[in-house]
Amino acid sequence: MQKSIEVCLTPALLDLYAIEDSIVVVIDVLRATSSIVYGIDNGAAAIIPVANVEDCLDYSDKGYLLAAERDGQVVEEYDFGNSPFSYTQEKVGGRTVVLTTTNGTKALHMARKRAHQVVMGSFLNLHALCNWLKTQDKSVLLLCAGWKDKFNLEDTLFAGAVVAELRKDFTHFDDSSVAAEDLYALAKNDLRTYLHKSSHSHRLAELNIEEDVKFCLQLNLCQAIPVLEGDALVSLKVTQSL
Amino acid sequence: MQKSIEVCLTPALLDLYAIEDSIVVVIDVLRATSSIVYGIDNGAAAIIPVANVEDCLDYSDKGYLLAAERDGQVVEEYDFGNSPFSYTQEKVGGRTVVLTTTNGTKALHMARKRAHQVVMGSFLNLHALCNWLKTQDKSVLLLCAGWKDKFNLEDTLFAGAVVAELRKDFTHFDDSSVAAEDLYALAKNDLRTYLHKSSHSHRLAELNIEEDVKFCLQLNLCQAIPVLEGDALVSLKVTQSL
Repeated sequence: MQKSIEVCLTPALLDLYAIEDSIVVVIDVLRATSSIVYGIDNGAAAIIPVANVEDCLDYSDKGYLLAAERDGQVVEEYDFGNSPFSYTQEKVGGRTVVLTTTNGTKALHMARKRAHQVVMGSFLNLHALCNWLKTQDKSVLLLCAGWKDKFNLEDTLFAGAVVAELRKDFTHFDDSSVAAEDLYALAKNDLRTYLHKSSHSHRLAELNIEEDVKFCLQLNLCQAIPVLEGDALVSLKVTQSL
Repeated sequence: MQKSIEVCLTPALLDLYAIEDSIVVVIDVLRATSSIVYGIDNGAAAIIPVANVEDCLDYSDKGYLLAAERDGQVVEEYDFGNSPFSYTQEKVGGRTVVLTTTNGTKALHMARKRAHQVVMGSFLNLHALCNWLKTQDKSVLLLCAGWKDKFNLEDTLFAGAVVAELRKDFTHFDDSSVAAEDLYALAKNDLRTYLHKSSHSHRLAELNIEEDVKFCLQLNLCQAIPVLEGDALVSLKVTQSL
């Protein structure tokens, strides 16, 4: 089978892509998909992504943890936001988390309407994700969450890391894949320094989440691949999928 | 004044940018804006960009040259399409050309609704354009025409060339500017070879326009900066603007 990789640089462009028969990898490296990967890896039963802060409240009497972030900050009165340090085994093990974020959950909700399958990607599960994608007879769309529908560097770099790992196993790459792969090659020896060029990086620095950023840029800390099943993200059973 | 540069990677994202007080540079390197720059440089009185092939016909009894390209090919019965070799002094000197193209004129029509000023950029007028932008007290949006609303490499590379030339004179750069500049740094020693990676390049190769591509990738062949005045692109009077 001819398998293609395409990179959709922001959710605002998603309608241009035929994804009905593709696996869509949602990418919001700083910090939503990193935290989701880490939380599922740490034994969270499920993470339910919702579009709006208000939607979280619908789940408030079910014993779920409520997580809400807007513009990089925890929304008042919620259990936590999207810092990966909130998604430790101690905090989320066995629990269900309801989560809304500025960009990541929006991208996810757009993708789920049409995609064959929706999974989460981050540097934390890069190898696990790529090894699984290689075994699937499907084309892949890497969907960068971006920042408020604009291009951002960190999500594009991760898309480039995936393209680099999958190059030998796929046959067609679009222009944004080529660009992402080349940018990742430039940046990979020191992602943190490279991202200092980024406008989003400056925004994040102002929010005092430098430790979060360092954490999210670690490669291959996790084996989990969160997959959307119904309304919830759960751990993909990779052995069954092979 | 704080002057910023932003790169809008496709016209589909233009609504996200505040351009009311900015100069928008429309970029469709292969081949619309290259041909427009070359035509104006060669003494075309004006080039009128229209949105649709049918709109060209409204001008058919006015003695204008009619140029129409769709999907890379000259539309039947038109004088020519958007090959730069049709825009020589012999062919267009003193004449007015009415032009529609797949991506470039669409981007231009979107920009003109809101921008302070709209000019055309291509490798052919890189230095002339940048030298003029440096003297203006305006922020700049580099608008890549892309390919059917998707990202393409060649327009992004040219945007990166502009960012590189303007870096010292501007104060703020968005993430897509950073990416474009870094990609141009990778590609600039051999643009043609780099673009062989591009899907659009393969499309163009099939159309037998390799000579056009080579022509459009030449730097600084022209001094003209086409600027939109009313409905027509004419030569910017740079000396008056200084």
